[in-house]
Amino acid sequence: MIVRIRLDLAYDGTDFSGWAAQPGRRTVAGVLGTALDTLLPGWTGMTVAGRTDAGVHATGQVCHVDVPADAWQAVADSVVRRFAALLPPDVRVRAATEVPAAFDARFSALSRRYEYRVTDAPYGAEPLRRRDTLAWPRPLTVDLMNEAAQGLVGEHDFAAYCRRKEHATTVRAVRRLQWRREPDGVLVAAVEADAFCQAMVRSLVGALLAVGDGRRPVPWPAGLLSRRERASEVVVAPPHGLTLVRVCYPSDAAELARRAELTRRLRAPGS
Amino acid sequence: MIVRIRLDLAYDGTDFSGWAAQPGRRTVAGVLGTALDTLLPGWTGMTVAGRTDAGVHATGQVCHVDVPADAWQAVADSVVRRFAALLPPDVRVRAATEVPAAFDARFSALSRRYEYRVTDAPYGAEPLRRRDTLAWPRPLTVDLMNEAAQGLVGEHDFAAYCRRKEHATTVRAVRRLQWRREPDGVLVAAVEADAFCQAMVRSLVGALLAVGDGRRPVPWPAGLLSRRERASEVVVAPPHGLTLVRVCYPSDAAELARRAELTRRLRAPGS
Repeated sequence: MIVRIRLDLAYDGTDFSGWAAQPGRRTVAGVLGTALDTLLPGWTGMTVAGRTDAGVHATGQVCHVDVPADAWQAVADSVVRRFAALLPPDVRVRAATEVPAAFDARFSALSRRYEYRVTDAPYGAEPLRRRDTLAWPRPLTVDLMNEAAQGLVGEHDFAAYCRRKEHATTVRAVRRLQWRREPDGVLVAAVEADAFCQAMVRSLVGALLAVGDGRRPVPWPAGLLSRRERASEVVVAPPHGLTLVRVCYPSDAAELARRAELTRRLRAPGS
Repeated sequence: MIVRIRLDLAYDGTDFSGWAAQPGRRTVAGVLGTALDTLLPGWTGMTVAGRTDAGVHATGQVCHVDVPADAWQAVADSVVRRFAALLPPDVRVRAATEVPAAFDARFSALSRRYEYRVTDAPYGAEPLRRRDTLAWPRPLTVDLMNEAAQGLVGEHDFAAYCRRKEHATTVRAVRRLQWRREPDGVLVAAVEADAFCQAMVRSLVGALLAVGDGRRPVPWPAGLLSRRERASEVVVAPPHGLTLVRVCYPSDAAELARRAELTRRLRAPGS
């Protein structure tokens, strides 16, 4: 008998070549797979909510694997501590829980939330947060960035902000795109959508930074939504400011399956 | 003419052999000195508020240097950005300001505040904060730790918690020693005193962790204050959980000088 296990993950993306396993590269999926080989032998079908790019972090990543029920039962009581002992300190399994077979980490997800951290302090990024904070060389005006962000919220074709894949839609529903300045002066963008295409969050952030430091006018980022292909003027913000902080799922099993079916039909590749 | 410059510093202590310059070692004072050679040639007398040990971090360290007035005037307007360009990303000069000659970063200080971060989550430290958060393998009870901490607040001879130096007093006035649990579950100790002797904060934290996980009774840490020498039963907590967050100074020049004179008389070595 096989059971489906949901893994809630956090990682510091600095020393990873992104999520997806690649031969000869250190990736989160690769490192996690090695730990799974020891802890839950016979695991299959690792599926992740957000395939983060190289250098992108996560505090709330979610994936699922299918494992033989006896392997799971042998470790279920102490599985989090066992993962902690097996994994390197830059990746952690925060929780591991048995879920209904209808749960699909990628296709059942209702939304993903990312945060992007950037500082415009003249001294640069706080040393202890330099791994997840971009240092921006010019002062940023949060109000301008939020005004520009308003025009990007909603369901749009984000082709201008996506690396295009064949036969994949670039229509996405951005539910939230909002900047705040924290008490320590760091600017944080909260970006939430049903899903994102590749490099989309960093492209949105890059466009808003150009507004924030006065190089582009407020209407510019929304104006690009009329394009049918990637806008080369948009500078993709560096990966290290970006963290996947949360993935939301329906709370009941019937809804999980319905959502997965719907998403699969809408979006073959991409996530 | 010579002017005195106060430097407000932040650093990630992970890759430093502490504050003090040592031949053949990478230290904060050494790296800062190299930047000063370029930016403020002719500087002398670097003096720091808290000589942090290897691996200890700072967000609010303070030091002073004396520099030729013409060297200072040549860069004063852009000094923070220039430091940012010269220094490695694990050390930052947050501010550089001309101060009265009576200001002494070490002897004028009224108090130092440190924070110690520790997590008892079964999965260990959050990857992006693992450099400044200790992972503790057993659950901790904050109330027990705060009850025990009460007995340590006040002016005492902290010989049990100090590495003794010849002819130096180990009497210190601890103004605050308080644990809180943050929303993310991390426990943070705020520790404030007029000054600390070497490894004192980490020794206090080590004693309180032993209470927090139930290995020692609540009255034990305060009971050690009757000792006249270092208590070998106290395990010094690892350096990476510790950050110097703030140094307080009197606000006017007369008081700066008075305080410095008083401290010099009380405490020849130590800080």
